[in-house]
Amino acid sequence: MKIALAQLNYHIGNFEKNTEKTIRHILRAKEEGADLVVFSELSVTGYYPHDLLERKEFIDKAEIAVHQIASHCNGIAAIIGSPVINHDNRGKKLYNSALFLNNGKVESIHRKSLLPTYDIFDEYRHFEPNKEFSLVEYKGRRLAITVCEDLWEEQEVQNEFGKEKLYQVSPLKELAKLEPDLVINISASPFSYNQEGARKKILVKNAVRYNLPIVYVNQVGAQTEIIFDGGSCFIDNQGEILVQMNYFEEDFQIIDTQNIVPLQQKPADTIEKMYKALVLGIRDYFTKTGFKKAVLGLSGGIDSALTLVLAVEALGRENLRVLLMPSKFSSDHSVNDAVALAKNLDVQYEIINIQEAVDAFQKSLSPVFQNLPHDVAEENIQARARGIFVMAISNKFGNILLNTTNKSECAVGYGTLYGDMNGGLSVLGDVYKTDVFRMSRWINRNGEIIPENTIMKPPSAELRPNQKDTDSLPDYDTLDQILFNYIELNQSPSEIIRKGFDEATVLRTVRMVNTNEYKRFQAPPILRVSSKAFGFGRKMPLVARYD
Amino acid sequence: MKIALAQLNYHIGNFEKNTEKTIRHILRAKEEGADLVVFSELSVTGYYPHDLLERKEFIDKAEIAVHQIASHCNGIAAIIGSPVINHDNRGKKLYNSALFLNNGKVESIHRKSLLPTYDIFDEYRHFEPNKEFSLVEYKGRRLAITVCEDLWEEQEVQNEFGKEKLYQVSPLKELAKLEPDLVINISASPFSYNQEGARKKILVKNAVRYNLPIVYVNQVGAQTEIIFDGGSCFIDNQGEILVQMNYFEEDFQIIDTQNIVPLQQKPADTIEKMYKALVLGIRDYFTKTGFKKAVLGLSGGIDSALTLVLAVEALGRENLRVLLMPSKFSSDHSVNDAVALAKNLDVQYEIINIQEAVDAFQKSLSPVFQNLPHDVAEENIQARARGIFVMAISNKFGNILLNTTNKSECAVGYGTLYGDMNGGLSVLGDVYKTDVFRMSRWINRNGEIIPENTIMKPPSAELRPNQKDTDSLPDYDTLDQILFNYIELNQSPSEIIRKGFDEATVLRTVRMVNTNEYKRFQAPPILRVSSKAFGFGRKMPLVARYD
Repeated sequence: MKIALAQLNYHIGNFEKNTEKTIRHILRAKEEGADLVVFSELSVTGYYPHDLLERKEFIDKAEIAVHQIASHCNGIAAIIGSPVINHDNRGKKLYNSALFLNNGKVESIHRKSLLPTYDIFDEYRHFEPNKEFSLVEYKGRRLAITVCEDLWEEQEVQNEFGKEKLYQVSPLKELAKLEPDLVINISASPFSYNQEGARKKILVKNAVRYNLPIVYVNQVGAQTEIIFDGGSCFIDNQGEILVQMNYFEEDFQIIDTQNIVPLQQKPADTIEKMYKALVLGIRDYFTKTGFKKAVLGLSGGIDSALTLVLAVEALGRENLRVLLMPSKFSSDHSVNDAVALAKNLDVQYEIINIQEAVDAFQKSLSPVFQNLPHDVAEENIQARARGIFVMAISNKFGNILLNTTNKSECAVGYGTLYGDMNGGLSVLGDVYKTDVFRMSRWINRNGEIIPENTIMKPPSAELRPNQKDTDSLPDYDTLDQILFNYIELNQSPSEIIRKGFDEATVLRTVRMVNTNEYKRFQAPPILRVSSKAFGFGRKMPLVARYD
Repeated sequence: MKIALAQLNYHIGNFEKNTEKTIRHILRAKEEGADLVVFSELSVTGYYPHDLLERKEFIDKAEIAVHQIASHCNGIAAIIGSPVINHDNRGKKLYNSALFLNNGKVESIHRKSLLPTYDIFDEYRHFEPNKEFSLVEYKGRRLAITVCEDLWEEQEVQNEFGKEKLYQVSPLKELAKLEPDLVINISASPFSYNQEGARKKILVKNAVRYNLPIVYVNQVGAQTEIIFDGGSCFIDNQGEILVQMNYFEEDFQIIDTQNIVPLQQKPADTIEKMYKALVLGIRDYFTKTGFKKAVLGLSGGIDSALTLVLAVEALGRENLRVLLMPSKFSSDHSVNDAVALAKNLDVQYEIINIQEAVDAFQKSLSPVFQNLPHDVAEENIQARARGIFVMAISNKFGNILLNTTNKSECAVGYGTLYGDMNGGLSVLGDVYKTDVFRMSRWINRNGEIIPENTIMKPPSAELRPNQKDTDSLPDYDTLDQILFNYIELNQSPSEIIRKGFDEATVLRTVRMVNTNEYKRFQAPPILRVSSKAFGFGRKMPLVARYD
């Protein structure tokens, strides 16, 4: 059987565009001789529509789109993803479903059994789990059609509880009893740089255990924070990956399940993948919100430098403008390094000295502040004045402000709310400072783009004379390791100390993380590249006592 | 049997305080002759700990607390709520459980079957649902012990799908087969002014259907946004409410299930309940985060006036300070009305003219802005300059900034991000403007507290000459009704138009709501008093196409 794998980028709620794109690829697959074309999970709506699923008019539109798409399935079958109403009187209102389209209509519906409800996933909020299993017979082959998590009965454990099987049911085990020839899985599985292997491992394990080949089609493209990386594939019943599709871009391939020559893949570097993920994240945020232009504050430091490089790659240099905003605490090299970068990238830049605005605040506040010593209040006025300047550009010219905070800062609250924490989108909020350095070096691999001095100099917020990040934070190598253990691996402080980290440093770090939940609560959406990003995938109570 | 109902205010993760409070009430119940004392859902941890439940050390602490509490149950039994580890190899790691403590130990565990996973509830994220049912025999009575949602198999429908039963299982039906004498339900059920009747209706319906009396103990107190209102009660097998405990405060009562004299209740006004809910919400946010003092900007308008009245009630006038921040567009009455209110409430106030700071920004920006016309960019500079001033006070003196935005503004995006949308806590973000007026009138019922002129004058942001809210928004009566239908009732624009609202106004309003998701994403936590507040109970995708 010839199967087309359509790995496409959908836009949530954009039924017109998603439908047009789906139909176009059905016609293309048919023209190229495919018997069946497979799309990804919730392809009709885009993954994930969140509470739009609670709106009846949204579901009505999905239904109309499904019928429109089905009407093009003549001489070819298709598998698409859509929410489908649960007409039973009990349970959640919808099923997350794969629909088998043939002969111009929906021939069968295959509901998702395992509903991920952890981290960024929230499916039990909207969907009822399936409990019945059946195959589709098509052109002499028996197809087991599954949706994403249905293959993920067993998961890698990232906590100290040590449980392996998250679910009571094993859909593939149930389906295997019906003796299929082939498993088809439609997915919306996001990129996480530190769990890259997990997906392939699961697919291979299932193929071998049930002695079944698997066609796996994943969504590609970003939906606000979440970046779907594609990487669709075909795995034979020995667990061999015979076809591997591209990462971070749309792709379309037709395979003949009877006759495939294995492909050798060159595995990309993790940093390169993170880079591509972030570029895709920025680009899709702008494309899907209908904006074109961005602005950011360039400090001469490494975070804003890297953010600018990523943004230029995603949006084009002509759509970027940057603001250099020195104060009396800014060193000469800050402005010079920032100008050098803007020139290297040929990006429009302006220099606005913030001192006059800062002085105006301090003058107006002096009757209230009296002669109290200079402290974080005055430091924050500087960061917030910069926040006003970049937002003024944003409001006046329609450029979206990109936030440049990295994950290490975001974790420990080393940033000013309503100041440098401003932005429509946080580009590096899930990238630790040590990875910011690593990625910057990688960007310079063929010659200097980010000025060497920006990479070499000790990080500083420059909010008071001779300030260095290390005045208030552990060195970033240590800090990032502690944070990774605490946040990504969910380990307890005592476990981290047992690993050999200094007790006082661990406790101080953990305390900074916990006491800054309130700041992160108001942070912009953060492009997610790890298994545990700040944002809605990690919900911590603000008023809790942590110790 | 004599049963003590302990309706208490817990602090998430504060095991020390929660345990001490629980033990104190066990001893008190014993002293006063009770056979059994009942606490509320997850009383050991506080409801709801969110992803702290994923941390093993948190669960270990809960376990220790349970054993500490159990050791005091001699000569009296207690029912408490705690997460309990699922030792089975399959499923989520925890059960949300009611623990029956007697003879110094945990005698039985009763797991929650129905896990609310909608609106603000997220329980399937952390808990495995129960599927086995059993009673407790104690002092000759057969007790059916249930946890909150277990009684909520049937729910009021607030959407256009029209489904009645949210769950596949009916725990009470299963338990009724075992022939209990009494149902005990431990709850954490939040206040919603527009669903006040639902809870009682469910309890009465269940009591009558199964011909069983129900002891219902609810949590009281706020956890960041969510306000639990208490109102614990005892209902006989005819569905008669015999005992009704207080709302919005801790309460403790011992009932003799054999011998109760019905109490007549004076039902409170909805506005009064909202008022009490908001006061409790403010007070608990401060108490539980360890802060005492608040600051807010007083504009002379009704929103900041009402916020101040609520804050003074919650925190005491000595813990408040306000900033009056006129610009050249501020009318005289703004300052006069604000001063009058501050004096009425005897609150420390300072006047800072923002014009100098605003002018400094405009001067520094003029080479960039050239001669482009005055627009929203300049308006926002004013709002953001005010944001800097109040945050400077906050940083310098340790006062938490209270946000004064109301729900109508928040819905349509009528506010400046990083300006008047700043704050540690949004007090009125779930209160529509028409209710802001209603509550202000109610506050003045025995004499003027909020200056009459503040209530009477047409609302204005005063960011340009002679600006009125109605320049850009429909009148608030119309706006709030459209918003309520769209947000709380989840109705489609076409359904709302069918109700008789002007088509253009509905479409414009809905478009404003949808295009401002990005602003609300960065808003402070909002005290929730309705069935659908902005915040984590309403998650809408930012990059979606809405139309």
